[in-house]
Amino acid sequence: MYRQCKIWPLAAAIFFSALAAAAPPPTTSEVIATAKPADWRAVDPQNTLYLQLDAGRVVIELAPAFAPLHVENIKRLAHEHYYDALSIVRVQDNYVAQWGDPDNRHATPSSSQSMPPEFERPLSDEVPFAALPDGDVYAPQVGFSNGLPTARDPQQRLLWLAHCYGMVGVGRDAAPTSGSGAEIYVVIGHSPRHLDRNVALVGRVLKGMPLLSGLPRGSGAMGFYEKPEQQVKIKSMRMQIDVPAADREHLQVMRTDTPTFKALVESRRNRYDGWTVHRANRVELCNVPLPVREAAP
Amino acid sequence: MYRQCKIWPLAAAIFFSALAAAAPPPTTSEVIATAKPADWRAVDPQNTLYLQLDAGRVVIELAPAFAPLHVENIKRLAHEHYYDALSIVRVQDNYVAQWGDPDNRHATPSSSQSMPPEFERPLSDEVPFAALPDGDVYAPQVGFSNGLPTARDPQQRLLWLAHCYGMVGVGRDAAPTSGSGAEIYVVIGHSPRHLDRNVALVGRVLKGMPLLSGLPRGSGAMGFYEKPEQQVKIKSMRMQIDVPAADREHLQVMRTDTPTFKALVESRRNRYDGWTVHRANRVELCNVPLPVREAAP
Repeated sequence: MYRQCKIWPLAAAIFFSALAAAAPPPTTSEVIATAKPADWRAVDPQNTLYLQLDAGRVVIELAPAFAPLHVENIKRLAHEHYYDALSIVRVQDNYVAQWGDPDNRHATPSSSQSMPPEFERPLSDEVPFAALPDGDVYAPQVGFSNGLPTARDPQQRLLWLAHCYGMVGVGRDAAPTSGSGAEIYVVIGHSPRHLDRNVALVGRVLKGMPLLSGLPRGSGAMGFYEKPEQQVKIKSMRMQIDVPAADREHLQVMRTDTPTFKALVESRRNRYDGWTVHRANRVELCNVPLPVREAAP
Repeated sequence: MYRQCKIWPLAAAIFFSALAAAAPPPTTSEVIATAKPADWRAVDPQNTLYLQLDAGRVVIELAPAFAPLHVENIKRLAHEHYYDALSIVRVQDNYVAQWGDPDNRHATPSSSQSMPPEFERPLSDEVPFAALPDGDVYAPQVGFSNGLPTARDPQQRLLWLAHCYGMVGVGRDAAPTSGSGAEIYVVIGHSPRHLDRNVALVGRVLKGMPLLSGLPRGSGAMGFYEKPEQQVKIKSMRMQIDVPAADREHLQVMRTDTPTFKALVESRRNRYDGWTVHRANRVELCNVPLPVREAAP
């Protein structure tokens, strides 16, 4: 034993100098800074929605691959200027902010129609899915599909969007077919994953989350504002293509089907940031950020 | 095969009529409403901290079982009125709100001392732990310890608090021993569980979260407010026992080691609320709420 031990100092010296020579894996900032042009994609202008408030603009990318009829109806409602001058009526702490017309006082044919429950969809090779490595409490598999946090069940051959922070959904009443788009919500707290497969998620916020997450919480049941003057007026809600060119955003999001995104995920699983002392070696679906940047017009 | 099948209709009829006769399990509201006095405990006045802002009071219950020396130092700093007239200086969206003295301009001996890294503790029979049934992405086991979301590793014989929404921690610099209590943060977004075992968590907010989670987000790096006038002044931070009796809270929290709490957890795993169409049959640690109520003085 002792003789063997004698060689350890040399072996250790070689091992540790090799470690020192290897650079640590990149941090999240480094992954983003060194991403190549092909690691980014433009946001689809046909599916970009602007929620305009006095305080600024919230940019939402819609997800027609998951809820095509809901998305189509929201586009129709936006074209009809249905949402303009409606309000944010509900902000429930650690849950959702919600806008629209909960009492159907401004009902239109589009805002009143019955909708199929697009809460999940069949697995299909047409819908990309880049799996994450660390499992999930709620679903057999989780990962990303074109920037969207997604869960799936290979046995049931089903795929659905996950209620992560910043995801946008269509409120409904007790009837699963009642989500016309008259009420829209965004997740502002710990991800309420129990809502998965119960609501049609229609997209995610790419820019402007603090305009919603930082709103005063409503003091009524379920976070509804109790006085009309507490509600936050919607100036307009428009599809990007209906906005003058000079007033459009030029956002790009990081692609989620690339080695660069894998490196980004790894930089969240194990942080070599000079601060972390215990690296998790794990990451939850809803703790993976989606990098978004402004591109030149 | 066919003969066997002939008895199915009768068996099925018995089975489904039995199901119909049984009342559905209680909802979360029903569990809370029917909880008995013994299902609640008073908050420990020796470990209750009030963060007083112009907009109201945030009540924090401290966790000396997990970070005894950090808790002791925060009590000392509160007794010394160290926090009074300091400010909330940082609100980072989907992450934390933080207050204190990041630049050490108001340093005192207590606010400058080196602290042992109380990021995890040995498993012990003295520390209660009620396990949850559905696993976790980050830890081998999760559950509740006296109302605190907790993770543990039976092999390593370690136990630690989990960074769920509303948990309160002690900010530190790169040195693990630098968390004196000069900076304190609260989680206001999706639970950043990668911080587990990297920081001393010292308690959780029981009341007043919207006063922190609803603050405007800072526009500087890491959510720091860029202008001093954006900072939110702390009126005072005091232990409950240092506040006049007439001005004290009388909060009770639901015990987490009872059959009632198990029923509460079950009511979150499977919701019989007339709205849910797909019951998750799962619940994440950070999606289990801790009921808090006002008691008569």
